Amino acid sequence: MHGRTRDGLVHVEPNARERYYDSRGYGVPDGDALDLAPVEAAHLLYRGDLETVDGREFREYLTSEPGLAVRFLVYKDLRDRGFYLAPAERTLDSPSADLAVFPRGKGPWDGEVAYRIHVLGERDPVPATALGDATLAVVDEESEITYLETDRPEIDGVSAVDLPRDVPATPLDDRVVVWEPPAAMYERGFYGQPLGRDDEALQLSLLEAAYLAGEGVLDLDRERVVEMGRRAEGERFDRRLAVYTDLRGAGVVPKTGFKFGADFRTYADVESVDELGHSELLVRVLPAEHVFSPRDLALDVRLAHGVRKTMTFALVGEGVAWASVTRLTP
Amino acid sequence: MHGRTRDGLVHVEPNARERYYDSRGYGVPDGDALDLAPVEAAHLLYRGDLETVDGREFREYLTSEPGLAVRFLVYKDLRDRGFYLAPAERTLDSPSADLAVFPRGKGPWDGEVAYRIHVLGERDPVPATALGDATLAVVDEESEITYLETDRPEIDGVSAVDLPRDVPATPLDDRVVVWEPPAAMYERGFYGQPLGRDDEALQLSLLEAAYLAGEGVLDLDRERVVEMGRRAEGERFDRRLAVYTDLRGAGVVPKTGFKFGADFRTYADVESVDELGHSELLVRVLPAEHVFSPRDLALDVRLAHGVRKTMTFALVGEGVAWASVTRLTP
Repeated sequence: MHGRTRDGLVHVEPNARERYYDSRGYGVPDGDALDLAPVEAAHLLYRGDLETVDGREFREYLTSEPGLAVRFLVYKDLRDRGFYLAPAERTLDSPSADLAVFPRGKGPWDGEVAYRIHVLGERDPVPATALGDATLAVVDEESEITYLETDRPEIDGVSAVDLPRDVPATPLDDRVVVWEPPAAMYERGFYGQPLGRDDEALQLSLLEAAYLAGEGVLDLDRERVVEMGRRAEGERFDRRLAVYTDLRGAGVVPKTGFKFGADFRTYADVESVDELGHSELLVRVLPAEHVFSPRDLALDVRLAHGVRKTMTFALVGEGVAWASVTRLTP
Repeated sequence: MHGRTRDGLVHVEPNARERYYDSRGYGVPDGDALDLAPVEAAHLLYRGDLETVDGREFREYLTSEPGLAVRFLVYKDLRDRGFYLAPAERTLDSPSADLAVFPRGKGPWDGEVAYRIHVLGERDPVPATALGDATLAVVDEESEITYLETDRPEIDGVSAVDLPRDVPATPLDDRVVVWEPPAAMYERGFYGQPLGRDDEALQLSLLEAAYLAGEGVLDLDRERVVEMGRRAEGERFDRRLAVYTDLRGAGVVPKTGFKFGADFRTYADVESVDELGHSELLVRVLPAEHVFSPRDLALDVRLAHGVRKTMTFALVGEGVAWASVTRLTP
């Protein structure tokens, strides 16, 4: 059969509905005929089910529209995995999705959507604000596809500790030392790091010290600590302190994520440092207007997966918004 | 005993040599007396072996000199691990090392050095040119220490393939398709990615296509592909092509490192894609003048370790220089 382009769609007649839609979920019926999106037409051309579109065979058609090749690769991959799918504009009200994937065994006539897929190349920008709306299908430079699920998680935990007020503390380079801390500060609150194995002195990070000074636990001027933090890392310190405070407020204990190249690793349920579980999240703190490269997302997701944590982004604008990204195999 | 500062060193007498140097490797003997570096004096104060320096006890002395606290933490950690060590200037001719660590069981009198340690905070810059000279001891904001071994590796392999000349190829968005490739191109050279499982068409990345065009294998103008690459990713493409070419020239097959957030993963010995081993290196391409943050190094090292590869940096200036970083537990 042959198709021809009409208003941006590929019109195929006669009896195309029965052959392509009824049994295999391609296109939108128009009586006995069918309207196909270009990506659907490309796939039918590739399979040899359609001979030409506007007189062009597969190879020529694929190069006829910029970006069609990348969308075709993802469409084909999902079809190969056993899904029926459709262009998003036909099915979804979504600002960023390109394809709506139906649950396995279902089709466009069932009214259910399993994945909302945003197709992009590895060099395309991903604004932080777009995370959470769709699954990213990133086509890399060698045409392999990586699926990244994005979400907007709730962050909460049950960690809490009561501490005395006005504990003396001494700034020391870019940290703060509490020479004689209350035992609960480290043992139940998981604040700081002991100076030595048999030493009670506790080293606090500037974030921990600024937070505890703000809570009145330390006898130290919060603004002074914040100034030390800004000298060390500029306005990034303010963003990180906002996230640190948000996490502690939600009952979650943040500790440095340095060994993982992140801002924090977090513990949602600290009763005692002697019975510390596995940390659950890796948190990267970013300004709300941050734009990711897909490669950085792939790096973070791979890293977090390797250490059995979830990569979570704290997006700091007026408040703190949360987004997470995980690898998906559809 | 008490010390006093003299010309930047801490002078202790009498009989300090026997007590601190002969049995435990601190300081430089001056007859029966001893000259200590501040970090050694701080450690003896911490242990209670020395009572005061210039009338100051440990806590006060530690805050007396900027940066002393961070050096003390690393010095103490290495002592706790059973090493004797000395300030680098006393022992080594090294532009970047701060501490010379002697092999376990040996001391300053044996003339052997196990590690050359550069001490830094997690916010200190690490110029790419400094990698390879010393082991980095990074003290993070919570005062934990991560040791990163740096090296200048040789890169070589035994992968090679003979290919015909002037194979037709078609640019397609930001990749190149070879519709009818010689079988050896993918199967022995590991160039490209087949379009489908039962499809012979091969998709090449722009890097692969530019390299093969330059070798005369593709009937395609190399400059045209390079222009496509520059449009897609700017001068980064030129750097990556220089590294791709260097690797292929060394008998190493580079494939995309996208899923790992790197530029390449590499195979030193490809005989056939059906018997492909594990890729050995993750390669990140950077300009020679790049300056790392320790956190980015920690991220890369953790990632590479998690996927059992070695993190390698290709530093592109006049030519390509290689540096690698791995985690070390002294």
